[in-house]
Amino acid sequence: MLNVFFIGSGRLANNLAHALQVNNVEITGIYSRTRSHAEKFASKFKTKVYEDLTRIPANCDIYFLAVCDGAISELAAQLKVEGIVVHCSGMMPQSCLGNQKHKGVFWPIQSFSNDYEVDLKNVPICIEAGGEEDIRILEVIADKISRRVIQVSEEERQKLHLAAVLVNNFSNHLFTLAQSILPPNLNFGLLKPLIHETANKIENLPPQEAQTGPAIRRDLTTIARHEELLKDNKKLLEIYRLLTLSIQDTID
Amino acid sequence: MLNVFFIGSGRLANNLAHALQVNNVEITGIYSRTRSHAEKFASKFKTKVYEDLTRIPANCDIYFLAVCDGAISELAAQLKVEGIVVHCSGMMPQSCLGNQKHKGVFWPIQSFSNDYEVDLKNVPICIEAGGEEDIRILEVIADKISRRVIQVSEEERQKLHLAAVLVNNFSNHLFTLAQSILPPNLNFGLLKPLIHETANKIENLPPQEAQTGPAIRRDLTTIARHEELLKDNKKLLEIYRLLTLSIQDTID
Repeated sequence: MLNVFFIGSGRLANNLAHALQVNNVEITGIYSRTRSHAEKFASKFKTKVYEDLTRIPANCDIYFLAVCDGAISELAAQLKVEGIVVHCSGMMPQSCLGNQKHKGVFWPIQSFSNDYEVDLKNVPICIEAGGEEDIRILEVIADKISRRVIQVSEEERQKLHLAAVLVNNFSNHLFTLAQSILPPNLNFGLLKPLIHETANKIENLPPQEAQTGPAIRRDLTTIARHEELLKDNKKLLEIYRLLTLSIQDTID
Repeated sequence: MLNVFFIGSGRLANNLAHALQVNNVEITGIYSRTRSHAEKFASKFKTKVYEDLTRIPANCDIYFLAVCDGAISELAAQLKVEGIVVHCSGMMPQSCLGNQKHKGVFWPIQSFSNDYEVDLKNVPICIEAGGEEDIRILEVIADKISRRVIQVSEEERQKLHLAAVLVNNFSNHLFTLAQSILPPNLNFGLLKPLIHETANKIENLPPQEAQTGPAIRRDLTTIARHEELLKDNKKLLEIYRLLTLSIQDTID
């Protein structure tokens, strides 16, 4: 039976641990800088809390550093283990894991918010490692929880991360901006079917072909009226103009 | 039995006609400037093609001007009818319908692409009309095809339209931009689960609370690396910076 150790007890750690445990991977232990979080995690997954990183079991198959990017290096430096140490960041280089014998990256292309559990089965997982044998082990583990596992280079992963920021963080921010311009009597919920449709449509069409709206139609009357509605909102007006131009660039 | 007439035979007309017909509204006739489109529509909905707008039946309950914004005025000016003439635009004022006795707006908050049929049941429909009785009739018709019908003012509708452009057209364009930066060996499909998650998340959280990513975390290392990846793509770099700043503005 494969066994893994978690460093970090946040949203990603919880999602991964859950998916691994239901697929018969043993969660050997948990370390978290916040003791109460570690205890909550340990009780949820029936595993053991370790308080000293230098004294954790050395022979787990994988050590998941499921922590924020800035904490990876410092925590990795304390690990004296035989198994593969992986971080789960879309951006950080493998080198931030220091001189570990076996190291790699295990990055699910997904965003994990508070209070919201994600089904990992459809979430692609990007893996990286130095050696063939390490890749094989990461693949075995990733295959247990996701239908789509890909081996990537560091630069490929970083480009995927940037693309993920565009489609997820930036789109979500557009939702926030849209909500901000609605009159108080109009509920944001009115836009939800359109938001779902926007996501559904690209299942069947490449996004460039799914593009609709005044910018792609070069409907200058509508664009002028939108700009007028935004005349007291300089920041959003600038975003509106830039994205409108960018859409028009795609058909030049 | 209520009966309606269609002017225009495009995607919106087809979606509306389908939803109305299955809900026992009679499609009395179709006019389209493109004869072959009118015939296709007529055969699909078993209705009659009219070639001269001045000679169409005058007593239908509603005349749907389901045409592009720029064509509404000219077509409306030719109509000599007793029923309610509505356009289906998110932006155009009612006044573009000219001197019709009964006029209004019937705007579903949705985007209709080629080759892709939309279930209207969950699509909010915005209605406007001058008189109470006209509103009532539009409401009866709209209630047949959608669970969510709201009466709006012209400015409210236009603001909703602008908001719809942000969440739909602009998000879709971000998908196009994301695809454009992926290396050729990485398929855009890798981002689809994240795109769906972005849409699903706001069912449970207001978008501001669903915001994640380097901008909201003020993760300057990641932002700098993203900017470096975009150094030869000035236009996308400008969009990246503007949206990153805009996200940070929400937490100032």
